[in-house]
Amino acid sequence: MTDQFQYRDGHLHVEDVAIADIADRVGTPVYVYSSAMLRRQYRVFAMALASACPDVESLICYSVKANSNLAIIRTLARMGAGVDVVSEGELRRGLAAGVPPEKIVFSGVGKTRTEMAFALQAGIRQFNVESEPELEALSETAAGLGLTAAITIRVNPDVDALTHAKISTGKAENKFGIPIGRARDVYARAAKLPGIRVIGVDLHIGSQLTDLSPFEKAFARAADLVVALRDDGHEINTIDLGGGLGIPYSPDAVPPSPDAYAAIVSRTVGHLGATLIFEPGRMIVGNAGALLSRVIYVKDGDGRTFVILDSAMNDLVRPAMYDAVHEIRTERQPQGEMIRADLVGPICESTDTFARDCDMPSVAAGDTLCFMGAGAYGAVMASTYNTRLLVPEVLVDGDRFAVVRARQTFDDLLGLDAIPSWLEQDS
Amino acid sequence: MTDQFQYRDGHLHVEDVAIADIADRVGTPVYVYSSAMLRRQYRVFAMALASACPDVESLICYSVKANSNLAIIRTLARMGAGVDVVSEGELRRGLAAGVPPEKIVFSGVGKTRTEMAFALQAGIRQFNVESEPELEALSETAAGLGLTAAITIRVNPDVDALTHAKISTGKAENKFGIPIGRARDVYARAAKLPGIRVIGVDLHIGSQLTDLSPFEKAFARAADLVVALRDDGHEINTIDLGGGLGIPYSPDAVPPSPDAYAAIVSRTVGHLGATLIFEPGRMIVGNAGALLSRVIYVKDGDGRTFVILDSAMNDLVRPAMYDAVHEIRTERQPQGEMIRADLVGPICESTDTFARDCDMPSVAAGDTLCFMGAGAYGAVMASTYNTRLLVPEVLVDGDRFAVVRARQTFDDLLGLDAIPSWLEQDS
Repeated sequence: MTDQFQYRDGHLHVEDVAIADIADRVGTPVYVYSSAMLRRQYRVFAMALASACPDVESLICYSVKANSNLAIIRTLARMGAGVDVVSEGELRRGLAAGVPPEKIVFSGVGKTRTEMAFALQAGIRQFNVESEPELEALSETAAGLGLTAAITIRVNPDVDALTHAKISTGKAENKFGIPIGRARDVYARAAKLPGIRVIGVDLHIGSQLTDLSPFEKAFARAADLVVALRDDGHEINTIDLGGGLGIPYSPDAVPPSPDAYAAIVSRTVGHLGATLIFEPGRMIVGNAGALLSRVIYVKDGDGRTFVILDSAMNDLVRPAMYDAVHEIRTERQPQGEMIRADLVGPICESTDTFARDCDMPSVAAGDTLCFMGAGAYGAVMASTYNTRLLVPEVLVDGDRFAVVRARQTFDDLLGLDAIPSWLEQDS
Repeated sequence: MTDQFQYRDGHLHVEDVAIADIADRVGTPVYVYSSAMLRRQYRVFAMALASACPDVESLICYSVKANSNLAIIRTLARMGAGVDVVSEGELRRGLAAGVPPEKIVFSGVGKTRTEMAFALQAGIRQFNVESEPELEALSETAAGLGLTAAITIRVNPDVDALTHAKISTGKAENKFGIPIGRARDVYARAAKLPGIRVIGVDLHIGSQLTDLSPFEKAFARAADLVVALRDDGHEINTIDLGGGLGIPYSPDAVPPSPDAYAAIVSRTVGHLGATLIFEPGRMIVGNAGALLSRVIYVKDGDGRTFVILDSAMNDLVRPAMYDAVHEIRTERQPQGEMIRADLVGPICESTDTFARDCDMPSVAAGDTLCFMGAGAYGAVMASTYNTRLLVPEVLVDGDRFAVVRARQTFDDLLGLDAIPSWLEQDS
């Protein structure tokens, strides 16, 4: 079964664990992830590639930014996944979760020299370089340490990913990569720099793509570039195709097919004899997670019903930030009675709204419900706004579950602050 | 002098401390606050009220959600401020900072029974009740503890605050308060409930108002309601007028005048013989804070210059979330050379943009700059997205400064996660 969030005897379960059990024992709000769904998504992606490109070497580097919990990373690392990281912190997470350095790629437009030195000393597989100033900084840092950085250069193919503007990254006006038209000049320069070994080409055009045609366009441009670079004398043995495969956020949405994606990969870059690197994030973890929440009040306004929850925009910011809509499932299997309501959190601004005019099963104070598809860009973006405790996370595996990030305490949170000496004495 | 962020000998200072000193000793990104500006803003507001309404008792309850650092709260508490809180966490902050319970008001649409019990036992001044279900829950909780909750009821005056939709809170379609037309019925009901003592009326129409006319309209409606409620036999001795006064976010913006605001207060509700409560947040702390950041790279794209900073949307989310534009000041006094650039952070999405097509002084890698007006809704909304360490905070007072929230360490951050038993053994 694909979807591990199912009703049994009228109550919602994650794999073999009752949601109500988690809500009672850990409290709400809380993120819940299914190990089975994580593993399945990884397998589906890997098998689609293996079947469409049987003779091509490839490495799936899970994109840690989507969900960086160590337990999630380790679950995937056990399946053979590497990681794509964008900061020293994410790199440390990969290492702490047991990912071998030779399966770690370092992306991002703002790598500092400190971060570069750390990554070089850890012996990571490659740096995806995003700009000429970064190239120089990396060369100086590597040479200074007597080390060599294996690099790809991220090119910006100027392709419209047809996704939300905030997560589109492959157009000329975005901050990412170097314009593909300037790539050959930059590679020529890179080849001459000390401490740098050019190994490949990198691109990533955006996140949550549901139309595959932008991939085809972008990968074809990458293939042309690989040929041109090889003509120029560069040894290009790696093509990093980034991530971006979308997921369904509603029950009737049709997700893009991994097989169709793999077929595009095969026909655009499969013949080039290069190792292919993939950086899926949301596609692996998005549908494997949900945010559990309890109803505090059901409030009738002027012709409007507000369902006020104990989760808020600080726990799950996607609706406020990206206009995202998450499917809602109630803990109790719906019996048919529906309401139209605004789902809101307790935070003191109108931004704190999960859904407006939402047709949903009738609920009462104390009921538990889930925001589905919250495994990616959920917990990683959480804050403590309104001095709300950082939201905990639970991982389910069959009939067992574990708290993989405990709920913060008030002492933890207030303990971060310090009173200056001049305010210490009682006034 | 109003603005405590000034150039001296060509270098930006906060009061008597060089910005460069803080950047060197604490690192970047970092929030910096001026005690003098905090105190001045509080004084300006208090004096405007004292002068426009000399015979009216009033209490300024600083709205903790704007900036909840204990050192900020204590600085204001020393001036006589109370606090407006919206969660148990914020209430604990108020108490920890030394605010007497009788100066604490508890607002928010989603107070839980646990939070109510905590607040009742702490002996806070009043609850601003937002709905009938909340009223019932509070009555039951208070009666169960043998205590009495002094309450105002937040009424929604259905006034357009003429501010950003995300922070407008006084229209009928918002989740806040009860419709003013139903107020008398709800007060009648409240008066009969055990554990409840009705003391006043509350309203709050939104944040960052720069046009004062919505205040006048809303306060006048509140005044009519107070008269009607007294006619109904309720003893209304408190009017909580909320916050919402806007601040200038650019050097040429004209802030609304506290005196004009106080004059509106005086002529709408000044004659009613009630204690007035005010909940300013942004107005007190907004312009007193800045986010310091260093340039990592200056990158030329296709006809576009990107200034890549070491601060990101996880440190200051207002541009990504509310389309906010923050004035930029460079550490070195500008010498005239200007560039047009996109200011971006290192996070891997296009959302992570502070400003597009921004005309700003020329900068180079390693330069320090400030986002001004970042004292409110800055640090409180920060996250660790992309496994970036939670941003530290510094408070300046004259020629001294103190780290009032230290930079998080990687051990702190990764230490929040736990590996489940089934993933513990090496695979």
